[in-house]
Amino acid sequence: MVELADDPPRASPGARGEAPRQARAVATRGTILGAAAEEFAAASYHEASLSRILERSGVTKGALYFHFVSKESIALAVVDEMEGICRAMVERCGALGLDPLRTAAQVARAVQDELDGPVLRAGQRLCSEGFSGPHRPGWPYRFWQDVFEDLFARAAADGLLVPTVDPASLARTFTDVSGGAFVASLAITGLDDLARRVCENWELVLGCVADPAWLDGWRREGGMTAVLGPHVGRASDGSRGWVPEP
Amino acid sequence: MVELADDPPRASPGARGEAPRQARAVATRGTILGAAAEEFAAASYHEASLSRILERSGVTKGALYFHFVSKESIALAVVDEMEGICRAMVERCGALGLDPLRTAAQVARAVQDELDGPVLRAGQRLCSEGFSGPHRPGWPYRFWQDVFEDLFARAAADGLLVPTVDPASLARTFTDVSGGAFVASLAITGLDDLARRVCENWELVLGCVADPAWLDGWRREGGMTAVLGPHVGRASDGSRGWVPEP
Repeated sequence: MVELADDPPRASPGARGEAPRQARAVATRGTILGAAAEEFAAASYHEASLSRILERSGVTKGALYFHFVSKESIALAVVDEMEGICRAMVERCGALGLDPLRTAAQVARAVQDELDGPVLRAGQRLCSEGFSGPHRPGWPYRFWQDVFEDLFARAAADGLLVPTVDPASLARTFTDVSGGAFVASLAITGLDDLARRVCENWELVLGCVADPAWLDGWRREGGMTAVLGPHVGRASDGSRGWVPEP
Repeated sequence: MVELADDPPRASPGARGEAPRQARAVATRGTILGAAAEEFAAASYHEASLSRILERSGVTKGALYFHFVSKESIALAVVDEMEGICRAMVERCGALGLDPLRTAAQVARAVQDELDGPVLRAGQRLCSEGFSGPHRPGWPYRFWQDVFEDLFARAAADGLLVPTVDPASLARTFTDVSGGAFVASLAITGLDDLARRVCENWELVLGCVADPAWLDGWRREGGMTAVLGPHVGRASDGSRGWVPEP
């Protein structure tokens, strides 16, 4: 597919000049998506406005409508971006060489890192609002369930979980508590207390499903508070985060 | 405020005939709200259509627009109804005379009962989509957080919780896991596995925060599976619910 940037679409563009035109088109599309992510992160799908996305992006109306036919198509493209970020995140965390439970905790940390930017914030908000797109049924909940189930099954095989714990059930609980922390924190504090909620939830649930020996070691490292690092230690300067009480 | 049913609004209606007219108006409004709840339970706010609400309700367009100025105002009225149901539910559960932890579990059961109807299903879906209304900040998450915090503080005072558990933190975790079970189950299974998720989540979390003696007694009664009753025992006939594995 040939895409043009700020020009109206043409039926059969010549081969000469394709490369820079395509590069420009990709750049323009990225500019629009960045602006859309900021808009959808700040407002619900219903409240979000195409004209504010236009304003934020600085591109022409023609360019926007060349790349996207509707607010819905922009929203779905933001969720596409989110999907790429999530898959890369899981791969990166898997490559750290940690045990499966520590890998799961690192995934939670990586999600907090990415939520500092607008794409994951907008994507997760759109998904909470049911905007994951028909080509991605159950996204991102089914995805996280699969990721966690894989990690917890390996943790069980390695003896890192209490033997009565079912990895699939635990994966559902972590998916629920994570998805719920987002919607509840968004509704109550505009995501200000999200890292605190995540920290508490992981401490509580890991505290009752992890093997006591693993837990001892993990707690000596500082537990979830240490994993979440700056996210739970930034409340004193007014930014997002949480300083645990002494 | 004077409301009329199927007639166009009149500036100054006479006193005669007010009572039946008002009764009719209340009935018409209820019919519209019932139809709207069915529509918003089946579709996202974005997908829901006023013309399908009209069709479902069987009232005239004029009657609908007399009572509600927009899709948004109908959605907010459905959340009003949900709020009333939730508050009544908490009162009813509190009046059962159970200890605070059993009361909390009964609240979870009552929510499942009400989710069999369209109002709570629609209301919770609308809230997940950010449609709680500006006059209800944080609804329903802040509400449930307060309800659970009150119950867990009393449970702690009665020695029903492990001493290291903070009631406010535990209330946030239950709010997160409950709100998340709804959005994840809606996205993955259209709410088919919601009762199962709730059952697993409560068994897991109560299993690690409740006092061992309380837990022994509760488990002898059948635990969360018994509390949720028909909701977790209906999957075999294809309806919503879950039969726990033997």
